[in-house]
Amino acid sequence: MNNILRVNTLTKEIRSEACKPEEVLLGGRSLIADLALKEIDPNCDPLGRKNKFILAVGLLGDTNVTTSGRFSVGGKSPLTGGIKEANVGGSVGRTMAMLGFRAVVLEDAPAVRQTNILVITGEKVQLISAPDFQNLAVRATCRLLRDRFGKNVGVICVGPAGEMQMAGAGLATTDKDGIQIRFAGRGGMGAVIGSKGIKAIVFDDTGVKTTTKYDRKALNAANKKLVQIIRDDPKTESRHNFGTPGVLAICDSLGILPTRNFSAGHFERMDAISGRTIRELIDKRGGDGRAGQPCVQGCIIQCSNVFPDPSGKATVASLQYENIALLGSNCGIGDIDDIAELNDLCNEVGLDAIETGAAIGVAMEAGVIPFGDSEGAKDLIHQVLKGTPLGRIIGNGVVITGKIFGVKRVPAIKGQAIPAYDPRSLKGIGVTYVTSPMGADHTAGNALEMADTIDPRGRDGQVEVSLRLQLRAAILDSLGVCLFIRPAFVKSPELLAELINARHGRKLQFKDVQQMGMNCLETEREFNRRAGVSTEHFDVPEFMRYEPLPPYNTVFDLTMDEMNKILEVQAPKDQF
Amino acid sequence: MNNILRVNTLTKEIRSEACKPEEVLLGGRSLIADLALKEIDPNCDPLGRKNKFILAVGLLGDTNVTTSGRFSVGGKSPLTGGIKEANVGGSVGRTMAMLGFRAVVLEDAPAVRQTNILVITGEKVQLISAPDFQNLAVRATCRLLRDRFGKNVGVICVGPAGEMQMAGAGLATTDKDGIQIRFAGRGGMGAVIGSKGIKAIVFDDTGVKTTTKYDRKALNAANKKLVQIIRDDPKTESRHNFGTPGVLAICDSLGILPTRNFSAGHFERMDAISGRTIRELIDKRGGDGRAGQPCVQGCIIQCSNVFPDPSGKATVASLQYENIALLGSNCGIGDIDDIAELNDLCNEVGLDAIETGAAIGVAMEAGVIPFGDSEGAKDLIHQVLKGTPLGRIIGNGVVITGKIFGVKRVPAIKGQAIPAYDPRSLKGIGVTYVTSPMGADHTAGNALEMADTIDPRGRDGQVEVSLRLQLRAAILDSLGVCLFIRPAFVKSPELLAELINARHGRKLQFKDVQQMGMNCLETEREFNRRAGVSTEHFDVPEFMRYEPLPPYNTVFDLTMDEMNKILEVQAPKDQF
Repeated sequence: MNNILRVNTLTKEIRSEACKPEEVLLGGRSLIADLALKEIDPNCDPLGRKNKFILAVGLLGDTNVTTSGRFSVGGKSPLTGGIKEANVGGSVGRTMAMLGFRAVVLEDAPAVRQTNILVITGEKVQLISAPDFQNLAVRATCRLLRDRFGKNVGVICVGPAGEMQMAGAGLATTDKDGIQIRFAGRGGMGAVIGSKGIKAIVFDDTGVKTTTKYDRKALNAANKKLVQIIRDDPKTESRHNFGTPGVLAICDSLGILPTRNFSAGHFERMDAISGRTIRELIDKRGGDGRAGQPCVQGCIIQCSNVFPDPSGKATVASLQYENIALLGSNCGIGDIDDIAELNDLCNEVGLDAIETGAAIGVAMEAGVIPFGDSEGAKDLIHQVLKGTPLGRIIGNGVVITGKIFGVKRVPAIKGQAIPAYDPRSLKGIGVTYVTSPMGADHTAGNALEMADTIDPRGRDGQVEVSLRLQLRAAILDSLGVCLFIRPAFVKSPELLAELINARHGRKLQFKDVQQMGMNCLETEREFNRRAGVSTEHFDVPEFMRYEPLPPYNTVFDLTMDEMNKILEVQAPKDQF
Repeated sequence: MNNILRVNTLTKEIRSEACKPEEVLLGGRSLIADLALKEIDPNCDPLGRKNKFILAVGLLGDTNVTTSGRFSVGGKSPLTGGIKEANVGGSVGRTMAMLGFRAVVLEDAPAVRQTNILVITGEKVQLISAPDFQNLAVRATCRLLRDRFGKNVGVICVGPAGEMQMAGAGLATTDKDGIQIRFAGRGGMGAVIGSKGIKAIVFDDTGVKTTTKYDRKALNAANKKLVQIIRDDPKTESRHNFGTPGVLAICDSLGILPTRNFSAGHFERMDAISGRTIRELIDKRGGDGRAGQPCVQGCIIQCSNVFPDPSGKATVASLQYENIALLGSNCGIGDIDDIAELNDLCNEVGLDAIETGAAIGVAMEAGVIPFGDSEGAKDLIHQVLKGTPLGRIIGNGVVITGKIFGVKRVPAIKGQAIPAYDPRSLKGIGVTYVTSPMGADHTAGNALEMADTIDPRGRDGQVEVSLRLQLRAAILDSLGVCLFIRPAFVKSPELLAELINARHGRKLQFKDVQQMGMNCLETEREFNRRAGVSTEHFDVPEFMRYEPLPPYNTVFDLTMDEMNKILEVQAPKDQF
């Protein structure tokens, strides 16, 4: 797992190089930050020849640590103009790690649109022209790739939205069995790989035996402790049973559930789309329906699902909170089957469902279609697929949609749609949206997990909370493990060092790991400074400062100066 | 001319205040820079409540100095995200100055779309609701305003594009007789005033007698010298006879005439759209056709025209070089009547013809319509008027059009379309596009005027040339006089100080005037730095660095570092 594969997508030159010594303790998000700052012109066109598409696996990518093997994609974002990293489960991360690659970097860009597939096996790396895959929807693409290259392969791909280089395009990947379609959705990285003329990357580690030596005994011992704490954590059972949709009722009661283009934080039809309802329908409808599914091998939480239609046929897998909120309540749509279908359509076209749901909400506010019009919303996504002018507007995300239709209530920060947590009643996540190098991204530091220890609508302590959460995210995203195992490290921060030490033969302490997180954030901030998109230029949307959010009638009232103090705040020692 | 009128467009409060002592030597562009830096949050939404729309008249606005009375509009640009100033002739500047106002500042914004008219007379200032003007085209708006408020009024207005807050919208104004429709086009300031719910501003100085005391004798003496030099200048006669279209043949021979979306610098049908052809047609067709018309009262150059259709009926007034190039050769359209009609359509809808021509060129490259399809181009502008999705894309300018259609050859810098001078073969203007606070704007420092003293395709001296031209523009735009009278100040720089001293009772020397220009540029740069759009973040479009421009096969080869040296370069002493 110590090599970096580089593919020049213009000249088709392929080469592999060993990680430099200073890269050996970087993985996933922190490796992307490091490579981006060293290699990408921060002022380049995100869809031009000078940007790079980076795929990187976490530091624990080739281990059996629970939830490990997530992988990150990143580069300069066509939405934010700054650095972006998005990560996801599935089987690609581990396969890539087993093949010895810590990162794959796609460089330069072909002069005209191309449809190529990069195939990486233990024996060779090939860039194959695949015009028959052009404009193919995501599910068919994944199926065809598995048919052609074997059931054991890990695949990532884009849908037509990514091929058309729409800034709302994400990257799709499947689980080991090819059932779930999961997305590294945020930041428009699907458009970036699309601009490189790469439709898909296929990883096949068949027959590859890892020769990497590390202290497996120590790693297993650390993992055992980790697993035990997770199993004991009261949230684990709920996550397993209800998945991320379980937080919908919580967010509704906190008044932060985006509703009708962020004009309210409570949705009157919440019950019809909640985690409990979803679970009941899965159980009642049977058929393909499943709850408690893993997205990466070896996960003990298993929070994914397969959501079936009334006849029991799978509609979408996995149906997640953020997508339900943005495509559902945010569009005034309260029918869970409609929402599942919209989610599936986004997946098929290869769109980030958060960005797209926000864009549809703004189009509804503009009167393009009325709120609640689920058939109209489906038609909009079909139009993305067809590449009509209206479809291309939606596919390019919420900010462009707002500009095109002259809408003032545009839920975006730094060009990227705000996810399913309205910051007016969850102030800490507002600090994250504004100050994280990732922009409006809930995975960069979600204050919801602190909502029972600090008043979510209060002003005090939000900056400190955000920094701590941002650090957590940066560390876990660099290890390639799921944010949901953080309770173990909160309880036992030294576990983080134990895992890294066992895998990489180091003698780190927790404070060193914390410093790794700080370094990651600081590297990303520096990229953004050089790109002209540093923290001080991006506030919450103006309407959130003067338009009270029902039902608590809050506005966002932390000042930019208060939030920017985050650059001086110290993380608490010995605490994750 | 010492008052600033402020209108709160949300509360409808109107108040007038005297200029502060430090504002008394600021006018037009320099006053906009000063007010913007003091009053506008540089990180605000350009179409939100925190931006301001500023209208300012130059320091010589109420004098009879030749070409004086031009006025500037400005604020934060929805295209560049930085400060923008655009200026234009017509009768508004002088009327406003005679009414005692150096600036009108529109603040805040109504919550929902409104159609109001601000009426300013010697007796009162009124904000009138005028729903009957909603979506009215520009010519009808101007005519109706003159019908309703008298033939003596000066008017500015937006068309439907500005009302719909499209970033490609400009501001229209008429000459004294209501014949010409002239535009303060660049930077999307039409969208900004549209966001304030103001359709038009009407100035009526009927019966107003100025009581301002200044040394009229000295001013007349200075003006006499000025006029004499202009009359003696060899370019004046050509400008009078052929207007700005006269440079088309020059630009074609230099290889900088934008052709088919900036893919070439020479147009094979150049002869059919040249200044000479236009003049011949005006003479031959007769009827409404006119050459040698003034745009402001008292201009001795008189470079405007009224271009007639084959039957002699006016199509557009005035038909200018940049619009011919962007709507013509840049779209592969070589029929001057088609171009005039396209220009008129842009005027009617209230669009900047440069931004719109560039956007249509990109749409043509994307295959929306083919190059040369003049009827298709007209249809696109009709679609802007109707507010269709495709029309809204075009109306929002070239960068959004490029993003939506996934086009890589997008001729824009800092979000704004490059005007009719390809920087690959006129390097000095490239330096201006990149380093001027105004972005890609030929009026900010057009190196064409130095093309016979410095090799336009060479690398040497371009930064120095650009600085000198940027300073000239900043000074002239602050006086409110036309760039075409610069030969007088090149020959006799002290004339600038003489004019200001006579009007404002000072004892300035040329070096003080030069410093005023530097201060203006530096104030604008500081606004842009705070807005995150400073010089170091914006290069020429990437394709211009690797795609050779026929016929000279040049690429743009000045580095960002070389161009940014402009911040250290000193302007030559005693030279304008």
